[in-house]
Amino acid sequence: RRFSISFNMAKSKFEYVRNFETDDTCLRNCYIVVRLDGRNFHKFAEQHNFTKPNDNRALGLMSRSARSVLEEMEDIVIAYGQSDEFSFVFKRSSTWFKRRASKLMTHVTSQFSSSYVFYWKEFFGEKPLLYPPSFDGRVVLYPSNRNIKDYLSWRQADCHINNLYNTVFWTLVQRGGLTTAQAEDRLKGTLAADKNEILFSEFDINYNKESDLYKKGTTLIWEKRDETVTKRLMLPNKEEKDVSVTRSRRRVETYHCDIIGEQFWEEHQDILEDDDC
Amino acid sequence: RRFSISFNMAKSKFEYVRNFETDDTCLRNCYIVVRLDGRNFHKFAEQHNFTKPNDNRALGLMSRSARSVLEEMEDIVIAYGQSDEFSFVFKRSSTWFKRRASKLMTHVTSQFSSSYVFYWKEFFGEKPLLYPPSFDGRVVLYPSNRNIKDYLSWRQADCHINNLYNTVFWTLVQRGGLTTAQAEDRLKGTLAADKNEILFSEFDINYNKESDLYKKGTTLIWEKRDETVTKRLMLPNKEEKDVSVTRSRRRVETYHCDIIGEQFWEEHQDILEDDDC
Amino acid sequence: RRFSISFNMAKSKFEYVRNFETDDTCLRNCYIVVRLDGRNFHKFAEQHNFTKPNDNRALGLMSRSARSVLEEMEDIVIAYGQSDEFSFVFKRSSTWFKRRASKLMTHVTSQFSSSYVFYWKEFFGEKPLLYPPSFDGRVVLYPSNRNIKDYLSWRQADCHINNLYNTVFWTLVQRGGLTTAQAEDRLKGTLAADKNEILFSEFDINYNKESDLYKKGTTLIWEKRDETVTKRLMLPNKEEKDVSVTRSRRRVETYHCDIIGEQFWEEHQDILEDDDC
Amino acid sequence: RRFSISFNMAKSKFEYVRNFETDDTCLRNCYIVVRLDGRNFHKFAEQHNFTKPNDNRALGLMSRSARSVLEEMEDIVIAYGQSDEFSFVFKRSSTWFKRRASKLMTHVTSQFSSSYVFYWKEFFGEKPLLYPPSFDGRVVLYPSNRNIKDYLSWRQADCHINNLYNTVFWTLVQRGGLTTAQAEDRLKGTLAADKNEILFSEFDINYNKESDLYKKGTTLIWEKRDETVTKRLMLPNKEEKDVSVTRSRRRVETYHCDIIGEQFWEEHQDILEDDDC
Repeated sequence: RRFSISFNMAKSKFEYVRNFETDDTCLRNCYIVVRLDGRNFHKFAEQHNFTKPNDNRALGLMSRSARSVLEEMEDIVIAYGQSDEFSFVFKRSSTWFKRRASKLMTHVTSQFSSSYVFYWKEFFGEKPLLYPPSFDGRVVLYPSNRNIKDYLSWRQADCHINNLYNTVFWTLVQRGGLTTAQAEDRLKGTLAADKNEILFSEFDINYNKESDLYKKGTTLIWEKRDETVTKRLMLPNKEEKDVSVTRSRRRVETYHCDIIGEQFWEEHQDILEDDDC
Repeated sequence: RRFSISFNMAKSKFEYVRNFETDDTCLRNCYIVVRLDGRNFHKFAEQHNFTKPNDNRALGLMSRSARSVLEEMEDIVIAYGQSDEFSFVFKRSSTWFKRRASKLMTHVTSQFSSSYVFYWKEFFGEKPLLYPPSFDGRVVLYPSNRNIKDYLSWRQADCHINNLYNTVFWTLVQRGGLTTAQAEDRLKGTLAADKNEILFSEFDINYNKESDLYKKGTTLIWEKRDETVTKRLMLPNKEEKDVSVTRSRRRVETYHCDIIGEQFWEEHQDILEDDDC
Repeated sequence: RRFSISFNMAKSKFEYVRNFETDDTCLRNCYIVVRLDGRNFHKFAEQHNFTKPNDNRALGLMSRSARSVLEEMEDIVIAYGQSDEFSFVFKRSSTWFKRRASKLMTHVTSQFSSSYVFYWKEFFGEKPLLYPPSFDGRVVLYPSNRNIKDYLSWRQADCHINNLYNTVFWTLVQRGGLTTAQAEDRLKGTLAADKNEILFSEFDINYNKESDLYKKGTTLIWEKRDETVTKRLMLPNKEEKDVSVTRSRRRVETYHCDIIGEQFWEEHQDILEDDDC
Repeated sequence: RRFSISFNMAKSKFEYVRNFETDDTCLRNCYIVVRLDGRNFHKFAEQHNFTKPNDNRALGLMSRSARSVLEEMEDIVIAYGQSDEFSFVFKRSSTWFKRRASKLMTHVTSQFSSSYVFYWKEFFGEKPLLYPPSFDGRVVLYPSNRNIKDYLSWRQADCHINNLYNTVFWTLVQRGGLTTAQAEDRLKGTLAADKNEILFSEFDINYNKESDLYKKGTTLIWEKRDETVTKRLMLPNKEEKDVSVTRSRRRVETYHCDIIGEQFWEEHQDILEDDDC
């Protein structure tokens, strides 16, 4: 029974390996963005018969998983997602996990991934999930409000461009009868205006009237909302009585709106902290 | 319809934000360890009624999820897990994801997390998973074979020490009738030998005979195994015939053995690459 | 003579070692501070008989070396020094050395160190420099104007505090006849007000009237100044004539003024770039 | 006199800026290389009339400055220099400056730079140094003995290749009467063997007999040498007597030898630590 003593000795002998860990604290006073991207989601979408160009169930599941991340981490002030990617922005003064990049990105990725499987059935019903999907993540820092707004604008501009392309592409295939190769050819070198024109003149589709969910992606923010709940009170005379109580609660709200222009930011001034800090 | 032109312009105007990403390439010729730890798993275990001190279903699910990670990433040469943690070791010459730390750790964490939910039912049957669990991850580099073996030894020594403690603690509570506070008190300041003695003299338990799964944790490695499959061949005379074909396949194998001593490493010399490289 | 072929082969065989270099690019849109500190300058000051508490020659040499750094690197917008330290601030949009931290800090340190020896004689005359002195450097990033002003304020507050202490300490020793140990004892636990009082009541010194060079350190910035030079012109009739030409030139100017308050920054608005960038 | 209180308050208010410093500890158990390169030394050499292709004074001054670095930092186990560059290798177990990369590289660069100016006169006599020169530095880590030997071999192969080129180039110009443009043209596309041939057949120069200082660069290592000094002893009878005392002292020794082959490493086995650590 003497062996176990040696395990304590062993542990202290080996413990030096701890010192090989390096510090990856994020620079203070910068917004911390964690962006996730689905791995091989092109194939994943095929295998699970996602509708083209947009699958409402899949987009809903992405959103639901993102909400689950926000609810776990209150320091996330805004999240933006489109297609198989989602970006989470931690407030610049956040001290979550001591701002350690690896903790922040793995925790976000993990929560998102397990939620994606957990909530699958809510969106896909009896359609089975064939295998556990994977997302990769990264951390990027932005020092100013201008930078973080430009980052989100970049992602939303990307959403617009991809969605316009995909909308025309799949319309040409699904309604125009082209093969995917033919559709690709047809679109080579076309400008946005050309793509709008194809949709309008050939298929009578006004792209501007397409769903904002597709054109603008999904934005999640925390908002204070008044909530009224009914509480049963015990009165002094031992009688019970229902009273309604209103209180302000912070909740995650969903938007499919423009975040490139200034209007969104003016209407939600508490998302960003002041630059002069 | 002119708006969409501006999205292309917008995108290129905002694209500068890309340059805020920093390079986190792992130093060459070092082993890359990604270690995962369950977040708030103490509470998670309570809420899902894990048996104490070890829950075979939970340990099995951890192992299954780890196997799913290995099968996705062939450059992982060995993985070691115990309790709610798992370490994955990439070979020192690996060029997966260009050795980018963030990609490596988030991909491992994501695959593990989604697998944990995906395979839950295989291990817990009808017992429902109450919410999506989360794991955090980190990357640590080890330059020499000595260092990486010491790292794994450190985790296994930790497993031994914790398991001995937990075994005595829960035996005192479950069979000895102590409260958890009393058990904690009783064990304060005891050495390994004392703990063995309590188990032996008071409960007739020989700790050495406890399951290796608990005492030594779980080690996963790739091994070449001959596999014989039966194939139906069409003979020239149009008859069909079953023939058995043997071929060598790389498979993930599971061990619950000592990895602190040299024996394991001598028996599996292809796990580590030579230091002189 | 065939050997030299093999050196080309050797070089390409070994060139893989280049890939072990890691990228240390500084985050964009942040001020980059390089701070230098003299190594073992306490001893260096003793060995070169610096006067206490402040040696004008030594402070002048520090300043001269710092100016030499600024003149080499135009992207430095402000430098601040006191005692044996100097901080250099690169503008937030700088792309010098592609913002590589190691290049920036070693180049600043090198230029400063070689200048210190080079200009020694200008300040110390025939007093010989006994050995080559050394400075160490570091890089720190600041994301906002508030942060960089606070950084410089921190160094200037440090200058004030140290200089008040040193002034009283050396007055007690040099004029009060105390040993250094006695002076240290005497000052233990005293507040700033107490130190002012000692100077005033015992030695008739009004600390406020001490030199700003000592109390406020040295600030170097670039300024546009009109410079008038005389040029000899050849007239059409072959006669020569002296004309005076005025042009605006950027020069390094020296200040010993308060940089904690807003006044300095209001008077020199071109030092910092706007936060909203 | 109340102002000074506020400086203490100010300092603590501003001190938060300290937390913006990031940790840059070098991975343990790796060799740490600091390499310096002269900045704009092509121009510097012109302005100080260095002889071509090699200037013994300049090479001697580089060596002298490197020795000054080694003597300040005993953890440097080997240094190798050629032309206007020098590499310093810290032992893999070094804990100097807590292995902080910025401290290591700036201290080496600073010591080297100030030494270069300090010792200038020893090598260049009355020829004046026109301005303070600058060097930039970087840190690279190497995990194995093979890697660090390959790094040094890479630099020596580079020395060979450049020196052969420069030797032929300047011989064509200085003795062959070609312009530099003509010499460049003449050498375009030539192999090492061709260059040797030009030297031999046109100028009767056997390149192999050129100085090893030029062909192999300069290697500095620490060596134990017996040193005999004469000490005057006081005998019991009050007489004095000279006795010679021998002791072993560590000194920096200079080599101009091959470090690509194994012989050098076999003869100096104490330079590198074992890989199995």
